[in-house]
Amino acid sequence: MNRILIIGCGLIGSSVLRTVYKKKISRKIFILEKSKNNISKIKRLNLKCQVLKDFKNEVPKMDMIIFCTHLSNYEQALKKINKFLNKKTVITDVGSTKNLILKKIKKKLKKGVFWTSSHPIAGSEVSGPEFGDSNLFKNKWCVLIKEKSSNKKHLKKLNQFWKRIGCKIVIMNTKQHDHIFAITSHLPHLIAYNIVKTALDFEKKRKLNLIKFSAGGLRDFSRIAASNEIMWRDIFFSNQKNIILAINLFIKNLKALKRDISIKNSNKIIKKLIITKKVRKKIIQLKQDVNLPDFGRN
Amino acid sequence: MNRILIIGCGLIGSSVLRTVYKKKISRKIFILEKSKNNISKIKRLNLKCQVLKDFKNEVPKMDMIIFCTHLSNYEQALKKINKFLNKKTVITDVGSTKNLILKKIKKKLKKGVFWTSSHPIAGSEVSGPEFGDSNLFKNKWCVLIKEKSSNKKHLKKLNQFWKRIGCKIVIMNTKQHDHIFAITSHLPHLIAYNIVKTALDFEKKRKLNLIKFSAGGLRDFSRIAASNEIMWRDIFFSNQKNIILAINLFIKNLKALKRDISIKNSNKIIKKLIITKKVRKKIIQLKQDVNLPDFGRN
Repeated sequence: MNRILIIGCGLIGSSVLRTVYKKKISRKIFILEKSKNNISKIKRLNLKCQVLKDFKNEVPKMDMIIFCTHLSNYEQALKKINKFLNKKTVITDVGSTKNLILKKIKKKLKKGVFWTSSHPIAGSEVSGPEFGDSNLFKNKWCVLIKEKSSNKKHLKKLNQFWKRIGCKIVIMNTKQHDHIFAITSHLPHLIAYNIVKTALDFEKKRKLNLIKFSAGGLRDFSRIAASNEIMWRDIFFSNQKNIILAINLFIKNLKALKRDISIKNSNKIIKKLIITKKVRKKIIQLKQDVNLPDFGRN
Repeated sequence: MNRILIIGCGLIGSSVLRTVYKKKISRKIFILEKSKNNISKIKRLNLKCQVLKDFKNEVPKMDMIIFCTHLSNYEQALKKINKFLNKKTVITDVGSTKNLILKKIKKKLKKGVFWTSSHPIAGSEVSGPEFGDSNLFKNKWCVLIKEKSSNKKHLKKLNQFWKRIGCKIVIMNTKQHDHIFAITSHLPHLIAYNIVKTALDFEKKRKLNLIKFSAGGLRDFSRIAASNEIMWRDIFFSNQKNIILAINLFIKNLKALKRDISIKNSNKIIKKLIITKKVRKKIIQLKQDVNLPDFGRN
């Protein structure tokens, strides 16, 4: 393609940028970035792109526009470019929730224009363009959202785009997406935040210095709990219903485990501890994690 | 020293063995191992040790005996050697809980003999002598349990021993130990098991194939949830009281987070998500984890 516009150039946006540049997917790369700090970082990093200035003339010529900004920034960013959009441009986003946000955004979107949503399952606990990586998406899943109203041509173009970026494609509707990621991603993040919060509370209450002994398990959770707070607030709020259901199921299971421990029900607890082990094996077979003890980190 | 006896030669026991051999800490290394499978692995791996056979003549001559077996095996193993023990031998263990198990074991222990407990904070999700590693303990904390009844000489010898193994030493009493590790290790493991269990339940209930999308967070928990089930049942049961308190505090905090999400309390949630980020920084400063995004695994 000739022109791509990346809106929001943090970890994900700058990784898209680097990959598009490296693989020569677009002749020109434009960015729209509201943080002056990020823009100066991008210049310092010498990332190959132009900061979008002439909205009126440039936006209508875009082949693809990709929202890589926080969910809570979508509306504000869309406002800037909405009246210059046209139906030929493939418009997509990389957001972690779909159902509510797409309903909201489509109400604002200029008539006749298409928004075809994506979600590459990639990222890490660090934020900002300096952590961007042209290999971030390699062999990762990318969910494409298909609905009745989806533009088939745009879906096909996005399919090709993400494949060139390095992803494997899977098609879902918004509801399936939000159900699945409530469990595989949103709940784990919430739980990680909560366990670190609980450790802090405990440290305060008992006046114990315990963080330095975190190598026994806590440190793993602390990595996820260091993820970007704006991103995660937005996710928790925009997938609220599914996350609350997941929390309820989680608490129900945790209370059952507590009961097993209270009454020392060995059979039940061993059974539970064995089935979870099989999940790890499956995850490694599916190449969703490295096959090394302790993530190979020591 | 001349003779060390390692009881239980799985991941931890065989790591002690390899380190003792590599650093020439003992002239002779004996092992007591009830699993025939482990013994044949140890032979195949050509680990430098002798399988203890002549209890009556060999046990009294040991300089050090180190229990590296599951907590629930302590009594049975002690029974075999108890009457041959003497007060000169430094007797220790590497168990993950202290208060209850030490009370129990000291009741069984031959009169006049000392048990001085240790806990090196090292391990991983894999089990068995084939995963042992002579670098496992390098720069890790080792807790030494000091009580009124502790033998000062033995404590000093253990201090020297674990330092030669590669550890940094910290002294605690049994209660401090069990409070701290309930939060930094036992609760995280329990939570990891519970989140994987919850994902499995959800997968079954909704007939969704979700494990393959675990890269968004779940995979981290699955590693810890793949830990040895006997070891963790024993820990949960023998630190029951503290773990139940930790679960209660965790559920209280999780319900508060659920409420924040329900009413979209942005300020409160952002505040919580920011303080947990600071813990990650502290953990890295304290060198309790690698300073690489995503554990450097990709």
